[in-house]
Formats: sequence, C-alpha cells, structure tokens
Amino acid sequence: VSASARPYHHGDLRAALLDAADTLLDQGGDGAVSLRECARMAGVSPTAAYRHFADKEALLAALAARHFEAFRDALAPAAASARGRAYVRFALARPGRFRLMFGPLLARAPAHPVLLAAANAAFADLNARTGSRDGALRAWALVHGLAHLLLDRAIPGGEDPEALVARLLGGS
Amino acid sequence: VSASARPYHHGDLRAALLDAADTLLDQGGDGAVSLRECARMAGVSPTAAYRHFADKEALLAALAARHFEAFRDALAPAAASARGRAYVRFALARPGRFRLMFGPLLARAPAHPVLLAAANAAFADLNARTGSRDGALRAWALVHGLAHLLLDRAIPGGEDPEALVARLLGGS
Repeated sequence: VSASARPYHHGDLRAALLDAADTLLDQGGDGAVSLRECARMAGVSPTAAYRHFADKEALLAALAARHFEAFRDALAPAAASARGRAYVRFALARPGRFRLMFGPLLARAPAHPVLLAAANAAFADLNARTGSRDGALRAWALVHGLAHLLLDRAIPGGEDPEALVARLLGGS
Repeated sequence: VSASARPYHHGDLRAALLDAADTLLDQGGDGAVSLRECARMAGVSPTAAYRHFADKEALLAALAARHFEAFRDALAPAAASARGRAYVRFALARPGRFRLMFGPLLARAPAHPVLLAAANAAFADLNARTGSRDGALRAWALVHGLAHLLLDRAIPGGEDPEALVARLLGGS
C-alpha cells in the first residue's frame, strides 16, 4: 500500500473527488477538470473514481448541483434588497463555479436529475419572493446579467462592483 | 501537390481558418476548436495556420472580434424598442458564438487588441443610446441576463423566447 492509497468510505471518496474537481475548476475552469486528475489528487485509481462518476460530464453535473445548493444557502438569509448583491458576490467570488452552474451544462440538466433538482430549487426560491412572475423574472435577469458582465469585465469604468450593483439594484 | 493543398492569398487563408473555427464552435463550443483541425479543414498544414495565429487563444480572440462586429451590425438598425429582442435573437441563433464573445476570453481582451477594440465599439453603441449611464447599464444587464438564462434553459415554463423577451423588455 503506497502512501497515497488512502482508504475511503463510499461517500467520502465521492466528496473527495468533488473537492478535487473544485480545486481544478477554480484554477482553470471546467476545461481543466478531468476525472483521472481528480482520482490522482484523491489518491485513488481512475477505476475507483469511475465507480462514482461515469464520465467527466457526470462529475461536473454533481459539482454544479453542489454549488446550486451553496448558492441557495448564500441567498436564503438575504433580505430582498440585499439578495441581488449576494447573487453578484457569489458569482465574483468563484467565477469558475458560477460559469459552470450557468453554462451549457445547465441546458443539459434534464439528463442529470440531481443537478436538475438543485437548480430548480434555487430558481424556485429566486422567483417565489417577488410579486408578479414577470417582475421576478425581470429582477433575476437584471442581476444575472450584471453578474456575467462584471465577470467578463465588460462594464467600463473600473468602478467597485459592490457599489455599482448596490446602485443599479437599489432602484434609480 | 495534393488535392487538398489549395493556394491561398494571405487574407483568404486567415478568413478560411476563421470560417473553419466557426463551424467547430457552432458544433461543440470553444472546447471543440483546435488550430490543427482548422488547418486540416482549410486544406493547409498546421505550420501555415500558425503563421496567422500564434495559438488557439489568438484564433478564438480573432473569432470573437469578428462576432462582435456582426453583433454590432445586427443591433445597429434596430430601433430602441427592438434592440433588446435583436440582442436575445443573436444569442439564441448561435449559442456557441455568444458564449465565446461573453466568456472568460473577454476578461482577457486587454491581451488581444483586435478583440478589445471590437468589443468596446459594440459596448459603446449599447451604452450611448439611452439617457443616463445607469439606465443604459441596467437595460444592458437585463437583456444580457435574459439572453444567458434563455440559452441555459433556466427559465421554466417553455414559453416562446421571443414573446417572453418582448413582454419583459416592453416595460410593465
């Protein structure tokens, strides 16, 4: 038994693989994640990792589901006026995670029930709190667009993102 | 001289490589683009392709610049009330292109002058047409967020995107 071959309980290895994937995602986006590298980082064989995730897409779907749960937790305590700022703060703190959650994978969520459930729970929270359905969608789109444009550094001026978001979301 | 070794004028090969990259982008996103495969599709050696683009990032930056120009042209004729719909229509028609334009590459645009200039020209158009700076930013974020959420299929209900956009952007 080599030093790196640590024993895992079933759920622990799954969590360790997701932790490794998070590290790779934060460093280089989803293109930097591989199941083989996650196995290496967790100190197990690729075969052991494939027992938990059929392929890279399954690993990323489980990871996105985990982050939708964290996203929901991050927004839950915020008052309505602060929720937009919490949303943008979540995106800017971990761009790789936000881009994974809201990216091509999300459009394929119906193939990944765990991701679909986690995303829908988060979206239901976002849309349940405001008055009309259209009002809620409009507020969501505004804060989501701001998060993306700030991530992309598309907004000129170099203003502090938190100050900008507070002003734009606070009403004019 | 093999059948695939067609002669190109300098600018024509550059355009042919970008056309090939577009095909790959539309099929599988930016992860599917490689300079080597673009060279193969254009019928030239990888070495010939590298004379135009130092690496994949340079190729993608030139491609994103091309699409920012097309984006600007698509929005220019639209009246203010129709611009939001034209914006979302552009995104939904070619998701791979929109995700490339508004993605991690954009945050690195300062390293790619051609992309930076094309993006800034498009953004200046978007922000010049409305009254206040904050009002313009708010309108931009709203339509940009809608485009992303529709691309990601994050909005439940299965409503026709054009109808949804027209209603949300028309003000309520």
